[in-house]
Parts: sequence; structure tokens; C-alpha cells
Amino acid sequence: MKLSDLTTPALVVERDLLDANLAKMAEALPGTRLRPHVKAFKTTELARRMHALGHTGFTCATVREVEGMAAAGLGDDLLLANEVLDCRRLGALDNARVTVAVDSAITVDAAAAGGVREVLIDVNVGLPRCGVAPEKAGQLADYARSKGLEVRGVMGYEGHVMLVEETEEKRRQVEECMALLLKASADVGGDLVSAGGTGTFHVNTWANEIQAGSYCLMDTTYAHAHAPFQQALTILATIISANEAGWFVADLGLKALGMDHGNPTIEGASVWYCADEHTVFSADGKDFAVGDRIRVIPSHIDPTVALHAEMHLVDGDDVLETWPVDLRGW
Amino acid sequence: MKLSDLTTPALVVERDLLDANLAKMAEALPGTRLRPHVKAFKTTELARRMHALGHTGFTCATVREVEGMAAAGLGDDLLLANEVLDCRRLGALDNARVTVAVDSAITVDAAAAGGVREVLIDVNVGLPRCGVAPEKAGQLADYARSKGLEVRGVMGYEGHVMLVEETEEKRRQVEECMALLLKASADVGGDLVSAGGTGTFHVNTWANEIQAGSYCLMDTTYAHAHAPFQQALTILATIISANEAGWFVADLGLKALGMDHGNPTIEGASVWYCADEHTVFSADGKDFAVGDRIRVIPSHIDPTVALHAEMHLVDGDDVLETWPVDLRGW
Repeated sequence: MKLSDLTTPALVVERDLLDANLAKMAEALPGTRLRPHVKAFKTTELARRMHALGHTGFTCATVREVEGMAAAGLGDDLLLANEVLDCRRLGALDNARVTVAVDSAITVDAAAAGGVREVLIDVNVGLPRCGVAPEKAGQLADYARSKGLEVRGVMGYEGHVMLVEETEEKRRQVEECMALLLKASADVGGDLVSAGGTGTFHVNTWANEIQAGSYCLMDTTYAHAHAPFQQALTILATIISANEAGWFVADLGLKALGMDHGNPTIEGASVWYCADEHTVFSADGKDFAVGDRIRVIPSHIDPTVALHAEMHLVDGDDVLETWPVDLRGW
Repeated sequence: MKLSDLTTPALVVERDLLDANLAKMAEALPGTRLRPHVKAFKTTELARRMHALGHTGFTCATVREVEGMAAAGLGDDLLLANEVLDCRRLGALDNARVTVAVDSAITVDAAAAGGVREVLIDVNVGLPRCGVAPEKAGQLADYARSKGLEVRGVMGYEGHVMLVEETEEKRRQVEECMALLLKASADVGGDLVSAGGTGTFHVNTWANEIQAGSYCLMDTTYAHAHAPFQQALTILATIISANEAGWFVADLGLKALGMDHGNPTIEGASVWYCADEHTVFSADGKDFAVGDRIRVIPSHIDPTVALHAEMHLVDGDDVLETWPVDLRGW
């Protein structure tokens, strides 16, 4: 199969760039030092490549992601790094080791009631989102143990620091966050101190495992944050209309692109706006014509991938493999 | 099945409000005066209700939508209101009447080569997107006829006028757009003058069919534009975390919500931001607690629906039907 045989819009992953990103991260954070976050790519075939490189534990954001990873035989050690109030589907999995994040007595009760056996105490390290206050983490761990749960340690996501541009300033802010997490870890016990992401993997030396996911495919937002990975995923699109007044229209839009970080990028063009099935742009140093196939770079990889049923691994004009994006939904 | 049995996040449609919206539109634009746009809901079961009310022709934005409508037996008269460069899948449909928009010689050639028999000349009426210049529409129609295609008329989408707030000003601007379309219609010939949307259905008296879709489910953007329809679709979510500092976290985020029109709305709350699987908000006149199930109103219905595999028709606490969102993808 050739690139020209694909229906557009289509998620396209360059094998060389993907492999380079995977290798670079595996060298920086070998084995279980990285717990790849599947939410960024939602594709078990891609997770399988990470597993083959030695990353045997994975991070998930939804029950569906945990189920799908277990069904794919990648259930060595799955962390659902999110609070869940109905844990029955997790407790029913008999082919995976499942650990779920808790940050309240209610979520501890839900884990126990659902048949989950292991939990991680989710600690708030500064991002206004989930997580128990650091000073209450030990108490929550005691409560979890009183319910018969194994407490494996702590997690805390320094998400508000991911896009700080200057490395030393980023390191300083991460250190502040991780001081809170290490204090909680001392109170909680357990082995795991889980944190981080693609934006902090290189400076977070305090956590003993990093939950990065975007690094394998990348997007323009993380590229601006100087993450040392290459843009492996683009969206193949077709120019369907051109106007003499100087604009072009490609056949992908809001239903093919996560838009929370703004417009996508097209090399040699200025993007004007996106509609449901259209991206309107003007030429900016490059020639375009109706019928041309172009590459569009999404600004945020995670919600973009969630809009597509499959992604294609390519090498030049050859489509090597087509992978189902099989971890979508809830 | 009860509402409490649903896994969250879940698309939930209130039957009474949906039926009222459908009835109101069917009264304003009966039969083929409305050509409902399926891109707004991507669900053939919902289209079937419109068909039963007399709207036998439909508008589609993708080849996949046309295929799905044909497969569902709703192929009386399907207009693909978008340019397509590979029309072979359209030409292969033998159980539907398919008309495709064209705005250039290349798209005419693609229609003819793909085995499509009928086209509509897409005319630019002011929105910077697809559409031939009005003064060139007749010439393009001649070219299409020279290729053996039946030209059914013209379409022109006044999308830039949809959100004008003041009715008389909106009417004035729509009239300007439609003057261009009627001029093109005179040159092109054919019966159809297709235009409009939920934001202009009540003032566009020049087109002889209106391509509205959002009216059935609605969103906060069109509500601000004073469309006389009610919010029939919400997303059922669960509060999974609460912080003493005053914020709450619900289990839906960027992968459950189209974000191009901004944050969603929660009654009695102020939404702070959305992350992949989280919406963070503070209480604003209402009490919330972990475990509560809440309704979240999306700001833009079309890309929101594209993120979900199914929608549930409900009446109070009863789930009446579960419909697959079966027109997703391309």
C-alpha cells in the first residue's frame, strides 16, 4: 500500500522518526524508569513497541485504556493515574496487574468495592486538579490499608510546569513540586514515586518513574517547550479548493484535530482557521494547488489521536502497517 | 436501563427537548424546505426521526456520512455539500441518490471520473472557504454538463453570518449573500438553491432549502445567537475529586468535548479549564460533592459528537434507546 492510496484525512506516523523518539527516551529513561502514558497515542501496537524496548509498565487515563492494554497482553503493570468511582470493570480484569490512583476516602472505598487490590496515593503538587493535599497523604494511605488495599506509593503530576521554556527555571519549579511529593512519599511508604511527562522528563530526577507519552509522536506545543523529540505524526490531507483571492482549503478540520492548543501548522503556509471538515490557509513561501496532498501538524497530539480510528506507519511513500487506535472511548 | 447505569462521560439526549426542536423546525421548514445536515449529529437513528417528519433529503460533509446514510436506507436524496477529489466510493453507491458539490474544473472531473451523476455548483457567498466566484458559476455549470453531469442548481453557505446577534442586521447580511447566490442560480439553472444553517434558518427566505443540523441537539454557541431551540444534548459526567481550596474535577475533558468554541458550561459552576480527561470548575451557586453526576453543556456540538461512539436518548432517569454515532470518520 502506498501513501497515495490512503483516504484523507489520515494519521501518518514516520517510522524513522518514531523509532528515533522511542530510542532516545529508552536511553534516557530505560526500563521501568519510564511508565509510558498511553493516553497520548491510544494505540496498543505502539505500546507494544515500547514494551519491546523494556518499558513494561504503562500509565492509563481511563478504564477503557486499562481494559484495552490488558486485552492486548500488555498488562504487566498498568497504572490508572486517575480517580475512578466505579472500579468494577478494573476489578474484573484477571489478566493484568492494575493499580488505581486515589485521592479521597470515597475513591479508596470505590477501589475496594470494585475489587481492585492495589492503589497509588495521588498527591496534589501544585496543579489545580486531582490529588490529596501532601500533608494528608499518609492518613489516606493508612485508610486504604485499613480497607485491605496494597499501597504502592505516590504519584503527583506537575502539569503546570510542562511548558515552562527555560530549563533551569523548569528544574527549580519541578524540584518544588517533587519536594511535596517526596514528603508525601515518606509518610505513605511503598516503592513508587511516579510523576512527570514529556515536558519534564529530562529535569525530574526526583521521581523514580516518569509518565511521559507525547514524546513518541510529538506535537507543536511540546516542540515549543524544547522537548528533544521529532514530530513523528502528521495528518495527511488533500487540498480540495483554491480561491484566486489567495486562500486554499484542505479536507481536515475540527473533527480531525484537537483544537484546545489552537490551530495546526502547515509548512510553507499560514493557517487562517478550521471548520468542521476544512482548514483554510494561505501560501507563505510554498506553492499549493487543488489535488495536492499536504502534511498538517496538530498542536495537541492527545485529543487529535482520539478523533481517528487508525494510524498508518509509513516509510517514505510506503504504508508499512495500519494500526487501530483501539483505546478510544471510556 | 437507568441513567445511573451509564458509564461516564456519556452523551445524553433529552427526548422531550429533542422532539420539541425537531417539531419546531419541521413546522418552520416543512418537508424538503429543510435538508438536515447530518454532520452536526452523525447518527442515522436521529436522521431517521427527521426523515419520519418529512425531511427526506439530507446534507452530508464527508463521503463516510453519505455511505452511512445510504446503508441506513436514508438515501432518497443525499447532498455532499463539500468538494471531493476521489469520488469513486460515491459513484459505487447503488442504493442512494448522490449529489456532490463542485467549485472547480478539477472537482467536476473528479465527480465524472468517480461515477457520480449529479452535482451542485458551490458558490462563494462571502465566507472565505470553498465555492466558485459567483460570476464564474454559470461557466462551471456548462463545463459540468459538457462532462455529462446533471447540474441540480447552486449552494452557498453564509457561515460568516451565523453568529450575528441582531436579527435585522443578520437578515440584511444574509440578503447580500443570497443576492450573489441567486445571481449564480440564474446563470447555472437547475432547481436547487441550497444554503443556510441553524443560525440563519429563520431569516434566509431566498434559498429554497436550508442546510441546518445543530438545531436538533444545540450548543451554547448557537444559544448565544438566539436560535429558538433548546439544549437537548448534554454530557453526563461524574465528579471524581474535590479540593478544599474550592475546586472540583469531573471525568470528562478534551477527549469528550469539542474545544474550538471554548470551555463547556456547567449550571451553578464556573469552568476553569479542561485537560485530557478532566474538567476543573468551582461552585457558583450550587453544591457539589465527589460522586455527584452532573450535566455538562458543550460549546460546539459538531466536534463533540465526533468524539463519542454512542448517544443515549433519555426521559428523566430512564434510558430509552442507545444510538451508535455511526457516521464518524471519513
